[in-house]
Amino acid sequence: MKTTKDTNILRIKGEDVKEEEDIVVVEYPFTIFLNDRELITLLCSPGSLRELTVGFLYSEGFIDDDSHIQAIEIDEEKGIAYVNIENRRVLAEKLQGKRTITSGCGKGTLFYNVLDSFKSKKIERPLDIEIEEIKDLMRQFSRKSQLFLNTGGVHSCALCSKSDILVFEEDIGRHNALDKVLGRAFLDRMDLSDKLVLTSGRISSEMLIKSAKRGIPAIISRSAPTSLSVELARELNILVVGFARGEKMNIYSSFPS
Amino acid sequence: MKTTKDTNILRIKGEDVKEEEDIVVVEYPFTIFLNDRELITLLCSPGSLRELTVGFLYSEGFIDDDSHIQAIEIDEEKGIAYVNIENRRVLAEKLQGKRTITSGCGKGTLFYNVLDSFKSKKIERPLDIEIEEIKDLMRQFSRKSQLFLNTGGVHSCALCSKSDILVFEEDIGRHNALDKVLGRAFLDRMDLSDKLVLTSGRISSEMLIKSAKRGIPAIISRSAPTSLSVELARELNILVVGFARGEKMNIYSSFPS
Repeated sequence: MKTTKDTNILRIKGEDVKEEEDIVVVEYPFTIFLNDRELITLLCSPGSLRELTVGFLYSEGFIDDDSHIQAIEIDEEKGIAYVNIENRRVLAEKLQGKRTITSGCGKGTLFYNVLDSFKSKKIERPLDIEIEEIKDLMRQFSRKSQLFLNTGGVHSCALCSKSDILVFEEDIGRHNALDKVLGRAFLDRMDLSDKLVLTSGRISSEMLIKSAKRGIPAIISRSAPTSLSVELARELNILVVGFARGEKMNIYSSFPS
Repeated sequence: MKTTKDTNILRIKGEDVKEEEDIVVVEYPFTIFLNDRELITLLCSPGSLRELTVGFLYSEGFIDDDSHIQAIEIDEEKGIAYVNIENRRVLAEKLQGKRTITSGCGKGTLFYNVLDSFKSKKIERPLDIEIEEIKDLMRQFSRKSQLFLNTGGVHSCALCSKSDILVFEEDIGRHNALDKVLGRAFLDRMDLSDKLVLTSGRISSEMLIKSAKRGIPAIISRSAPTSLSVELARELNILVVGFARGEKMNIYSSFPS
Protein backbone atom coordinates (compact mmCIF):
# COMPACT_ATOMS: atom_id res chain seq x y z
CA MET A 1 0.00 0.00 0.00
CA LYS A 2 1.30 3.42 -0.87
CA THR A 3 2.49 5.68 1.92
CA THR A 4 1.83 8.84 -0.06
CA LYS A 5 -1.08 9.98 -2.16
CA ASP A 6 -1.41 12.40 -5.04
CA THR A 7 -3.67 15.34 -4.46
CA ASN A 8 -4.52 18.60 -6.18
CA ILE A 9 -3.40 21.70 -4.38
CA LEU A 10 -3.13 25.43 -4.97
CA ARG A 11 0.52 26.37 -4.60
CA ILE A 12 1.08 29.98 -3.55
CA LYS A 13 4.43 31.69 -3.99
CA GLY A 14 4.22 35.41 -3.42
CA GLU A 15 1.69 36.67 -5.97
CA ASP A 16 1.94 33.47 -7.96
CA VAL A 17 -0.97 30.99 -7.64
CA LYS A 18 -0.80 27.63 -9.43
CA GLU A 19 -3.00 24.59 -9.38
CA GLU A 20 -0.70 21.59 -9.16
CA GLU A 21 -0.57 17.95 -8.27
CA ASP A 22 1.31 17.34 -5.05
CA ILE A 23 1.74 14.43 -2.65
CA VAL A 24 0.51 14.12 0.91
CA VAL A 25 1.48 11.49 3.41
CA VAL A 26 -1.14 8.80 3.97
CA GLU A 27 -2.70 8.54 7.42
CA TYR A 28 -4.12 5.06 7.73
CA PRO A 29 -6.53 3.92 10.47
CA PHE A 30 -5.45 0.46 11.57
CA THR A 31 -7.46 -1.50 14.13
CA ILE A 32 -6.01 -4.32 16.21
CA PHE A 33 -8.31 -7.09 17.42
CA LEU A 34 -6.73 -9.12 20.18
CA ASN A 35 -8.30 -12.50 21.00
CA ASP A 36 -11.52 -11.40 19.24
CA ARG A 37 -11.74 -8.17 21.18
CA GLU A 38 -11.27 -4.76 19.57
CA LEU A 39 -8.25 -3.30 21.30
CA ILE A 40 -7.33 -0.09 19.58
CA THR A 41 -7.22 1.90 16.36
CA LEU A 42 -3.84 3.34 15.50
CA LEU A 43 -3.39 6.09 12.95
CA CYS A 44 -0.23 5.20 11.10
CA SER A 45 1.61 4.91 7.82
CA PRO A 46 0.48 1.81 5.93
CA GLY A 47 3.62 -0.31 5.92
CA SER A 48 5.20 -2.98 8.11
CA LEU A 49 1.80 -3.62 9.65
CA ARG A 50 2.83 -6.96 11.11
CA GLU A 51 5.77 -5.27 12.82
CA LEU A 52 3.53 -2.48 14.08
CA THR A 53 1.00 -4.93 15.48
CA VAL A 54 3.57 -7.01 17.30
CA GLY A 55 5.57 -3.98 18.39
CA PHE A 56 2.51 -2.24 19.78
CA LEU A 57 1.42 -5.31 21.73
CA TYR A 58 4.98 -5.74 22.96
CA SER A 59 5.44 -2.09 24.02
CA GLU A 60 2.12 -2.06 25.78
CA GLY A 61 2.88 -5.24 27.66
CA PHE A 62 0.30 -7.51 26.04
CA ILE A 63 3.07 -9.84 24.93
CA ASP A 64 6.54 -10.45 26.30
CA ASP A 65 9.61 -12.32 25.18
CA ASP A 66 8.12 -15.64 26.14
CA SER A 67 4.69 -15.05 24.69
CA HIS A 68 3.35 -17.31 22.08
CA ILE A 69 1.56 -15.58 19.24
CA GLN A 70 -0.85 -18.16 17.89
CA ALA A 71 -1.96 -16.22 14.86
CA ILE A 72 -1.63 -12.84 13.20
CA GLU A 73 -3.75 -12.04 10.22
CA ILE A 74 -3.51 -8.66 8.54
CA ASP A 75 -6.34 -7.40 6.32
CA GLU A 76 -4.59 -4.53 4.62
CA GLU A 77 -7.58 -3.34 2.68
CA LYS A 78 -9.84 -3.05 5.71
CA GLY A 79 -7.01 -1.89 7.95
CA ILE A 80 -7.45 -4.63 10.53
CA ALA A 81 -5.15 -7.00 12.36
CA TYR A 82 -6.54 -10.11 14.03
CA VAL A 83 -4.20 -11.45 16.67
CA ASN A 84 -4.49 -14.42 18.95
CA ILE A 85 -2.13 -14.83 21.84
CA GLU A 86 -1.90 -17.06 24.86
CA ASN A 87 -1.53 -15.45 28.22
CA ARG A 88 -5.12 -14.43 28.77
CA ARG A 89 -4.55 -13.60 32.40
CA VAL A 90 -2.11 -10.81 31.59
CA LEU A 91 -4.47 -9.62 28.90
CA ALA A 92 -7.41 -9.36 31.26
CA GLU A 93 -5.32 -7.37 33.72
CA LYS A 94 -4.09 -5.07 30.99
CA LEU A 95 -7.51 -4.36 29.62
CA GLN A 96 -8.58 -3.17 33.03
CA GLY A 97 -5.43 -1.16 33.57
CA LYS A 98 -5.02 2.55 33.69
CA ARG A 99 -4.01 4.65 30.76
CA THR A 100 -1.41 7.29 30.56
CA ILE A 101 -1.83 9.37 27.52
CA THR A 102 0.92 10.77 25.52
CA SER A 103 2.09 14.23 24.80
CA GLY A 104 4.44 13.31 22.18
CA CYS A 105 4.51 12.87 18.51
CA GLY A 106 3.17 9.42 18.00
CA LYS A 107 0.48 7.41 19.42
CA GLY A 108 1.65 6.74 22.92
CA THR A 109 -1.50 5.84 24.77
CA LEU A 110 0.56 3.90 27.14
CA PHE A 111 -1.45 1.46 29.12
CA TYR A 112 1.20 1.48 31.77
CA ASN A 113 1.60 4.25 34.24
CA VAL A 114 4.59 6.56 33.94
CA LEU A 115 5.86 5.33 37.25
CA ASP A 116 5.98 1.79 36.00
CA SER A 117 8.97 2.90 34.07
CA PHE A 118 11.03 2.67 37.19
CA LYS A 119 10.33 -1.00 37.19
CA SER A 120 12.14 -1.24 33.88
CA LYS A 121 15.47 -2.88 34.40
CA LYS A 122 18.37 -0.59 35.11
CA ILE A 123 21.04 -1.00 32.46
CA GLU A 124 23.81 -3.03 34.10
CA ARG A 125 26.32 -2.92 31.27
CA PRO A 126 26.37 0.59 29.82
CA LEU A 127 27.04 0.75 26.12
CA ASP A 128 30.72 1.21 25.34
CA ILE A 129 30.50 3.44 22.30
CA GLU A 130 32.66 6.25 20.94
CA ILE A 131 31.41 9.61 19.83
CA GLU A 132 32.75 9.00 16.32
CA GLU A 133 30.68 5.82 16.11
CA ILE A 134 27.54 7.77 17.02
CA LYS A 135 28.31 10.38 14.36
CA ASP A 136 28.77 7.65 11.80
CA LEU A 137 25.48 5.96 12.72
CA MET A 138 23.63 9.26 12.45
CA ARG A 139 25.16 9.85 9.02
CA GLN A 140 23.87 6.46 7.89
CA PHE A 141 20.49 7.26 9.46
CA SER A 142 20.21 10.62 7.69
CA ARG A 143 21.10 9.10 4.35
CA LYS A 144 18.43 6.44 4.80
CA SER A 145 15.81 8.95 5.94
CA GLN A 146 16.43 11.24 3.00
CA LEU A 147 15.41 8.51 0.60
CA PHE A 148 11.91 8.67 1.96
CA LEU A 149 11.39 12.15 3.25
CA ASN A 150 9.52 13.65 0.34
CA THR A 151 6.31 14.71 2.01
CA GLY A 152 7.66 16.52 5.03
CA GLY A 153 5.58 14.47 7.38
CA VAL A 154 7.31 11.26 8.42
CA HIS A 155 9.42 10.15 11.36
CA SER A 156 12.26 7.68 11.05
CA CYS A 157 13.44 5.19 13.62
CA ALA A 158 16.24 2.64 13.53
CA LEU A 159 17.75 -0.10 15.62
CA CYS A 160 21.54 -0.36 15.31
CA SER A 161 24.61 -2.13 16.42
CA LYS A 162 27.57 0.15 17.14
CA SER A 163 28.46 0.15 13.47
CA ASP A 164 25.36 -0.66 11.43
CA ILE A 165 21.68 0.05 11.03
CA LEU A 166 19.88 -3.27 11.44
CA VAL A 167 16.23 -2.25 11.25
CA PHE A 168 14.84 0.95 9.75
CA GLU A 169 11.22 2.10 9.79
CA GLU A 170 9.23 5.20 9.02
CA ASP A 171 5.81 6.33 10.12
CA ILE A 172 3.75 9.47 10.50
CA GLY A 173 3.99 8.81 14.25
CA ARG A 174 7.33 8.47 15.95
CA HIS A 175 5.88 5.97 18.43
CA ASN A 176 4.58 3.87 15.58
CA ALA A 177 8.01 3.97 13.95
CA LEU A 178 9.63 2.77 17.19
CA ASP A 179 6.97 0.07 17.65
CA LYS A 180 7.60 -1.16 14.10
CA VAL A 181 11.31 -1.39 14.82
CA LEU A 182 10.74 -3.19 18.12
CA GLY A 183 8.16 -5.46 16.50
CA ARG A 184 10.72 -6.56 13.91
CA ALA A 185 13.25 -7.14 16.71
CA PHE A 186 10.68 -9.26 18.55
CA LEU A 187 9.87 -11.32 15.47
CA ASP A 188 13.58 -11.88 14.84
CA ARG A 189 14.28 -12.59 18.53
CA MET A 190 17.15 -10.09 18.53
CA ASP A 191 19.26 -9.48 21.63
CA LEU A 192 18.81 -5.78 22.32
CA SER A 193 21.21 -5.35 25.25
CA ASP A 194 23.97 -3.95 23.03
CA LYS A 195 21.85 -2.05 20.52
CA LEU A 196 20.93 1.60 20.04
CA VAL A 197 17.71 3.28 19.01
CA LEU A 198 17.98 6.22 16.60
CA THR A 199 15.02 8.51 16.11
CA SER A 200 14.26 11.63 14.14
CA GLY A 201 11.76 12.78 16.74
CA ARG A 202 11.78 14.12 20.25
CA ILE A 203 12.79 11.74 23.03
CA SER A 204 9.78 11.91 25.32
CA SER A 205 9.42 9.77 28.43
CA GLU A 206 7.36 7.32 26.43
CA MET A 207 10.00 6.82 23.78
CA LEU A 208 12.53 6.29 26.54
CA ILE A 209 10.30 3.87 28.44
CA LYS A 210 9.57 1.79 25.36
CA SER A 211 13.31 1.39 24.81
CA ALA A 212 14.06 0.85 28.49
CA LYS A 213 11.51 -1.93 28.75
CA ARG A 214 13.46 -3.80 26.10
CA GLY A 215 16.78 -3.23 27.91
CA ILE A 216 18.16 -1.02 25.15
CA PRO A 217 21.06 0.99 26.62
CA ALA A 218 21.07 4.01 24.29
CA ILE A 219 18.72 6.33 22.41
CA ILE A 220 19.98 8.98 20.02
CA SER A 221 17.89 11.70 18.41
CA ARG A 222 18.22 14.46 15.87
CA SER A 223 15.97 16.54 18.10
CA ALA A 224 15.49 17.24 21.82
CA PRO A 225 14.87 15.03 24.83
CA THR A 226 12.38 16.15 27.50
CA SER A 227 13.19 16.72 31.17
CA LEU A 228 11.36 13.57 32.21
CA SER A 229 13.21 11.38 29.75
CA VAL A 230 16.55 12.77 30.92
CA GLU A 231 15.63 12.05 34.55
CA LEU A 232 14.48 8.52 33.72
CA ALA A 233 17.59 7.90 31.63
CA ARG A 234 19.87 8.96 34.48
CA GLU A 235 17.95 6.71 36.84
CA LEU A 236 18.20 3.75 34.48
CA ASN A 237 21.75 4.30 33.16
CA ILE A 238 20.59 4.85 29.62
CA LEU A 239 22.67 6.94 27.25
CA VAL A 240 20.59 9.81 25.85
CA VAL A 241 21.99 11.94 23.04
CA GLY A 242 20.02 14.80 21.51
CA PHE A 243 20.49 17.21 18.60
CA ALA A 244 22.87 14.73 16.94
CA ARG A 245 23.45 16.44 13.61
CA GLY A 246 26.64 16.35 11.60
CA GLU A 247 29.57 17.02 13.91
CA LYS A 248 27.41 18.15 16.82
CA MET A 249 25.50 16.41 19.58
CA ASN A 250 24.46 16.92 23.20
CA ILE A 251 24.91 14.09 25.70
CA TYR A 252 22.34 14.21 28.49
CA SER A 253 22.98 11.05 30.51
CA SER A 254 25.41 8.18 30.98
CA PHE A 255 28.28 10.45 30.02
CA PRO A 256 31.04 8.40 28.44
CA SER A 257 34.11 8.30 30.69
CA MET B 1 5.74 26.44 37.05
CA LYS B 2 8.69 26.59 34.70
CA THR B 3 8.35 25.03 31.26
CA THR B 4 12.08 24.46 30.92
CA LYS B 5 14.66 23.06 33.29
CA ASP B 6 18.42 23.51 33.58
CA THR B 7 20.48 20.40 33.15
CA ASN B 8 24.14 19.51 32.75
CA ILE B 9 25.10 18.16 29.39
CA LEU B 10 28.21 17.28 27.41
CA ARG B 11 28.23 19.40 24.30
CA ILE B 12 30.13 17.86 21.39
CA LYS B 13 31.26 19.93 18.43
CA GLY B 14 33.66 18.02 16.22
CA GLU B 15 36.58 17.11 18.49
CA ASP B 16 35.51 19.62 21.09
CA VAL B 17 33.81 18.24 24.26
CA LYS B 18 32.50 20.65 26.89
CA GLU B 19 30.48 20.15 30.02
CA GLU B 20 27.86 22.87 30.03
CA GLU B 21 24.55 23.85 31.53
CA ASP B 22 21.72 23.66 29.04
CA ILE B 23 17.95 23.72 29.16
CA VAL B 24 15.49 20.94 28.39
CA VAL B 25 11.78 21.27 27.95
CA VAL B 26 9.74 20.04 30.92
CA GLU B 27 7.46 17.06 30.36
CA TYR B 28 4.85 17.16 33.09
CA PRO B 29 2.48 14.28 33.94
CA PHE B 30 -0.94 15.78 34.61
CA THR B 31 -3.85 13.62 35.75
CA ILE B 32 -7.49 14.60 35.32
CA PHE B 33 -10.07 13.29 37.79
CA LEU B 34 -13.60 13.69 36.50
CA ASN B 35 -16.42 13.36 39.01
CA ASP B 36 -14.08 11.53 41.41
CA ARG B 37 -12.96 9.09 38.79
CA GLU B 38 -9.42 9.01 37.38
CA LEU B 39 -9.84 9.74 33.70
CA ILE B 40 -6.45 10.16 32.15
CA THR B 41 -2.85 11.26 32.58
CA LEU B 42 -1.61 13.68 29.97
CA LEU B 43 2.06 14.40 29.40
CA CYS B 44 2.25 18.10 28.75
CA SER B 45 3.98 21.40 29.32
CA PRO B 46 3.08 22.79 32.75
CA GLY B 47 1.15 25.93 31.88
CA SER B 48 -2.48 26.87 31.20
CA LEU B 49 -3.56 23.75 33.05
CA ARG B 50 -7.12 24.96 33.50
CA GLU B 51 -7.36 25.56 29.75
CA LEU B 52 -5.87 22.13 29.05
CA THR B 53 -8.30 20.42 31.40
CA VAL B 54 -11.34 22.10 29.94
CA GLY B 55 -10.08 21.81 26.38
CA PHE B 56 -9.35 18.11 26.73
CA LEU B 57 -12.79 17.38 28.20
CA TYR B 58 -14.35 19.49 25.46
CA SER B 59 -12.40 17.85 22.61
CA GLU B 60 -13.14 14.39 23.90
CA GLY B 61 -16.84 15.15 24.24
CA PHE B 62 -17.14 15.00 28.02
CA ILE B 63 -18.44 18.53 28.03
CA ASP B 64 -20.22 20.57 25.40
CA ASP B 65 -21.23 24.17 24.96
CA ASP B 66 -24.16 23.81 27.31
CA SER B 67 -22.34 21.85 30.00
CA HIS B 68 -22.10 23.20 33.45
CA ILE B 69 -18.72 22.79 35.07
CA GLN B 70 -19.45 22.75 38.78
CA ALA B 71 -15.86 22.87 39.96
CA ILE B 72 -12.31 22.75 38.68
CA GLU B 73 -9.49 22.54 41.15
CA ILE B 74 -5.90 22.35 39.93
CA ASP B 75 -3.17 21.02 42.20
CA GLU B 76 -0.14 22.18 40.29
CA GLU B 77 2.39 20.59 42.59
CA LYS B 78 0.88 17.12 42.42
CA GLY B 79 -0.09 17.53 38.76
CA ILE B 80 -3.77 16.81 39.30
CA ALA B 81 -7.02 18.40 38.18
CA TYR B 82 -10.25 17.63 40.00
CA VAL B 83 -13.28 18.40 37.87
CA ASN B 84 -16.95 18.04 38.58
CA ILE B 85 -19.46 18.35 35.80
CA GLU B 86 -23.13 17.71 35.38
CA ASN B 87 -24.19 15.50 32.56
CA ARG B 88 -23.40 12.17 34.11
CA ARG B 89 -25.26 10.23 31.49
CA VAL B 90 -22.97 11.41 28.71
CA LEU B 91 -20.02 10.73 30.93
CA ALA B 92 -21.03 7.15 31.58
CA GLU B 93 -21.47 6.56 27.86
CA LYS B 94 -18.12 8.10 27.09
CA LEU B 95 -16.26 6.07 29.64
CA GLN B 96 -17.51 2.92 28.00
CA GLY B 97 -16.75 4.19 24.52
CA LYS B 98 -14.16 2.98 22.13
CA ARG B 99 -10.81 4.57 21.75
CA THR B 100 -9.03 5.61 18.62
CA ILE B 101 -5.44 6.17 19.26
CA THR B 102 -3.36 8.74 17.66
CA SER B 103 -0.45 8.67 15.34
CA GLY B 104 0.33 12.22 15.61
CA CYS B 105 2.46 14.44 17.66
CA GLY B 106 0.35 15.10 20.67
CA LYS B 107 -1.75 13.07 22.88
CA GLY B 108 -4.71 12.33 20.71
CA THR B 109 -6.27 9.36 22.38
CA LEU B 110 -9.52 10.30 20.91
CA PHE B 111 -12.37 8.64 22.63
CA TYR B 112 -14.41 9.09 19.56
CA ASN B 113 -14.07 6.96 16.51
CA VAL B 114 -12.53 8.44 13.38
CA LEU B 115 -15.77 7.98 11.56
CA ASP B 116 -17.58 10.09 14.10
CA SER B 117 -15.85 12.97 12.46
CA PHE B 118 -18.32 12.86 9.65
CA LYS B 119 -20.96 13.74 12.16
CA SER B 120 -19.17 16.99 12.78
CA LYS B 121 -21.09 19.75 11.22
CA LYS B 122 -20.22 20.66 7.67
CA ILE B 123 -19.09 24.25 7.45
CA GLU B 124 -22.02 26.16 5.94
CA ARG B 125 -20.36 29.53 5.65
CA PRO B 126 -16.82 29.07 4.36
CA LEU B 127 -14.31 31.56 5.68
CA ASP B 128 -13.90 34.53 3.37
CA ILE B 129 -10.21 35.22 3.79
CA GLU B 130 -7.51 36.51 1.47
CA ILE B 131 -4.13 34.93 0.97
CA GLU B 132 -2.42 38.10 2.18
CA GLU B 133 -4.37 37.90 5.43
CA ILE B 134 -3.16 34.33 5.97
CA LYS B 135 0.44 35.38 5.33
CA ASP B 136 0.07 38.18 7.83
CA LEU B 137 -1.39 35.89 10.49
CA MET B 138 1.45 33.41 10.01
CA ARG B 139 3.96 36.23 10.38
CA GLN B 140 2.38 37.19 13.71
CA PHE B 141 2.33 33.53 14.70
CA SER B 142 6.02 33.03 13.89
CA ARG B 143 7.00 36.12 15.83
CA LYS B 144 5.08 34.91 18.86
CA SER B 145 6.48 31.39 18.63
CA GLN B 146 10.04 32.60 18.38
CA LEU B 147 9.75 34.25 21.77
CA PHE B 148 9.41 30.85 23.34
CA LEU B 149 11.15 28.39 21.07
CA ASN B 150 14.41 28.07 22.92
CA THR B 151 14.50 24.36 23.62
CA GLY B 152 13.67 22.98 20.22
CA GLY B 153 10.84 20.93 21.55
CA VAL B 154 7.59 22.84 21.71
CA HIS B 155 4.56 23.18 19.46
CA SER B 156 2.59 26.40 19.14
CA CYS B 157 -1.10 26.79 18.46
CA ALA B 158 -3.27 29.88 18.07
CA LEU B 159 -6.85 30.86 17.54
CA CYS B 160 -7.29 33.94 15.34
CA SER B 161 -9.72 36.25 13.74
CA LYS B 162 -8.88 37.17 10.14
CA SER B 163 -6.55 39.88 11.38
CA ASP B 164 -5.41 39.03 14.91
CA ILE B 165 -4.17 36.27 17.15
CA LEU B 166 -6.68 35.97 19.99
CA VAL B 167 -5.35 32.99 21.94
CA PHE B 168 -1.84 31.57 21.82
CA GLU B 169 -0.57 28.44 23.56
CA GLU B 170 2.47 26.24 23.53
CA ASP B 171 2.99 22.66 24.62
CA ILE B 172 5.31 19.74 24.02
CA GLY B 173 2.30 18.07 22.36
CA ARG B 174 0.52 19.73 19.50
CA HIS B 175 -2.79 18.23 20.60
CA ASN B 176 -2.30 19.65 24.06
CA ALA B 177 -1.56 23.05 22.56
CA LEU B 178 -4.79 22.91 20.54
CA ASP B 179 -6.76 21.71 23.57
CA LYS B 180 -5.38 24.62 25.61
CA VAL B 181 -6.50 27.05 22.92
CA LEU B 182 -9.95 25.45 22.65
CA GLY B 183 -10.22 25.33 26.44
CA ARG B 184 -9.63 29.08 26.66
CA ALA B 185 -12.22 29.60 23.92
CA PHE B 186 -14.69 27.49 25.87
CA LEU B 187 -14.08 29.39 29.10
CA ASP B 188 -14.52 32.70 27.27
CA ARG B 189 -17.58 31.42 25.34
CA MET B 190 -16.08 32.58 22.07
CA ASP B 191 -17.95 32.20 18.78
CA LEU B 192 -15.62 30.05 16.65
CA SER B 193 -17.55 30.03 13.37
CA ASP B 194 -15.38 32.80 11.87
CA LYS B 195 -12.07 31.90 13.48
CA LEU B 196 -8.92 30.11 12.28
CA VAL B 197 -6.60 27.65 14.00
CA LEU B 198 -2.87 28.08 13.38
CA THR B 199 -0.49 25.30 14.32
CA SER B 200 3.22 24.66 14.04
CA GLY B 201 2.65 20.92 13.76
CA ARG B 202 1.32 18.47 11.25
CA ILE B 203 -2.41 18.57 10.54
CA SER B 204 -3.44 15.01 11.29
CA SER B 205 -7.04 13.83 11.16
CA GLU B 206 -7.29 14.34 14.89
CA MET B 207 -6.22 17.97 14.74
CA LEU B 208 -8.74 18.50 11.98
CA ILE B 209 -11.51 16.70 13.86
CA LYS B 210 -10.91 18.67 17.04
CA SER B 211 -11.31 21.90 15.07
CA ALA B 212 -14.24 20.61 13.02
CA LYS B 213 -16.16 19.63 16.14
CA ARG B 214 -16.01 23.26 17.20
CA GLY B 215 -17.19 24.47 13.79
CA ILE B 216 -13.91 26.21 13.02
CA PRO B 217 -13.76 26.77 9.25
CA ALA B 218 -9.97 26.92 8.72
CA ILE B 219 -6.74 25.35 9.93
CA ILE B 220 -3.34 26.61 8.81
CA SER B 221 -0.01 24.94 9.48
CA ARG B 222 3.67 25.56 8.99
CA SER B 223 4.01 21.85 8.20
CA ALA B 224 2.11 19.16 6.27
CA PRO B 225 -1.44 17.86 6.41
CA THR B 226 -2.08 14.11 6.09
CA SER B 227 -4.19 12.46 3.40
CA LEU B 228 -6.98 11.71 5.86
CA SER B 229 -7.19 15.28 7.09
CA VAL B 230 -7.36 16.57 3.51
CA GLU B 231 -10.18 14.13 2.72
CA LEU B 232 -12.09 15.08 5.85
CA ALA B 233 -11.55 18.78 5.19
CA ARG B 234 -12.93 18.49 1.66
CA GLU B 235 -15.92 16.59 3.03
CA LEU B 236 -16.57 19.23 5.68
CA ASN B 237 -15.74 22.39 3.66
CA ILE B 238 -12.84 23.28 5.92
CA LEU B 239 -9.98 25.36 4.55
CA VAL B 240 -6.66 23.51 5.03
CA VAL B 241 -3.40 25.29 4.32
CA GLY B 242 -0.02 23.62 4.80
CA PHE B 243 3.62 24.67 4.59
CA ALA B 244 2.61 28.28 5.23
CA ARG B 245 6.02 29.92 5.55
CA GLY B 246 6.90 33.44 4.48
CA GLU B 247 5.49 34.05 1.01
CA LYS B 248 4.64 30.41 0.36
CA MET B 249 1.77 28.13 1.23
CA ASN B 250 -0.14 25.16 -0.18
CA ILE B 251 -3.94 25.15 -0.15
CA TYR B 252 -5.40 21.67 0.09
CA SER B 253 -9.13 22.21 0.41
CA SER B 254 -11.87 24.84 0.18
CA PHE B 255 -9.91 26.63 -2.51
CA PRO B 256 -10.72 30.33 -2.41
CA SER B 257 -12.63 31.36 -5.50
